[in-house]
Amino acid sequence: MNYHIRKSEYCDLGSIVRLLADDKLGKGREAAENLEMYLASYKEILESPFFDVFVMGDENSKEIIGTYQMMFLPHLSFEGTRRAQIESVRILSTLRGKGLGEKLMEHAIEQAQENGCGIVQLTSNKDRSEQAHGFYKKLGFSSTHEV
Amino acid sequence: MNYHIRKSEYCDLGSIVRLLADDKLGKGREAAENLEMYLASYKEILESPFFDVFVMGDENSKEIIGTYQMMFLPHLSFEGTRRAQIESVRILSTLRGKGLGEKLMEHAIEQAQENGCGIVQLTSNKDRSEQAHGFYKKLGFSSTHEV
Repeated sequence: MNYHIRKSEYCDLGSIVRLLADDKLGKGREAAENLEMYLASYKEILESPFFDVFVMGDENSKEIIGTYQMMFLPHLSFEGTRRAQIESVRILSTLRGKGLGEKLMEHAIEQAQENGCGIVQLTSNKDRSEQAHGFYKKLGFSSTHEV
Repeated sequence: MNYHIRKSEYCDLGSIVRLLADDKLGKGREAAENLEMYLASYKEILESPFFDVFVMGDENSKEIIGTYQMMFLPHLSFEGTRRAQIESVRILSTLRGKGLGEKLMEHAIEQAQENGCGIVQLTSNKDRSEQAHGFYKKLGFSSTHEV
């Protein structure tokens, strides 16, 4: 599959929220038919240099098939090391298991490096499957903190 | 003990970093004698509406005896709910076990509410003692995610 990954724009919001809802845990807690609820947060994300939401697009169908949220967080601890925090990683449910999530995460780690982050962290809900946690471990993440 | 909790300022940086270093895990990873390393992150924290570092001061000695870092993070998930993320909670080692940490956390939760956060989260290193994790559980936090 040919795909690209880019920063999202306002016109992508519907696709992003549908991806958040296309998920075992997200299903009951998102409202894809009511995008106004998301606008205030999305405006802050798009306007601040500390936050971004990226999307993965299928080059052929032009459909949005993946997304993640990135935060660049100034910290005092670890000698003032800036951290990248990755959240809400989603691949369209019908396209999982094809390595696309790994491509998203590689992109996220590149973004972290380009933005001077010395630590990259992501949070994963404990209710996610062993498969999801195994996926992050394979990418080199280790579980160090509880939220 | 009479204390106050307030937003920190540049002149507090030395005291804050000494508190970060006054800790089992922080001891080996902070450089209180080299504050320049912290300045870039601290500037971003002070200048951005999304971040703050608070300090607790002893009213009598005027010494800084506690600190925490607060982040107000725009999220798309959970219908665009803004989250408060609490990090680097520290009380001077000689004053622990007197309920001061609880006062810091109550202050943090008030800040979260005043700033419209629907979720309050904190991360705690798995290497911290059962006592520390018990402290957060007592305050109503439950462990939901792994970092």
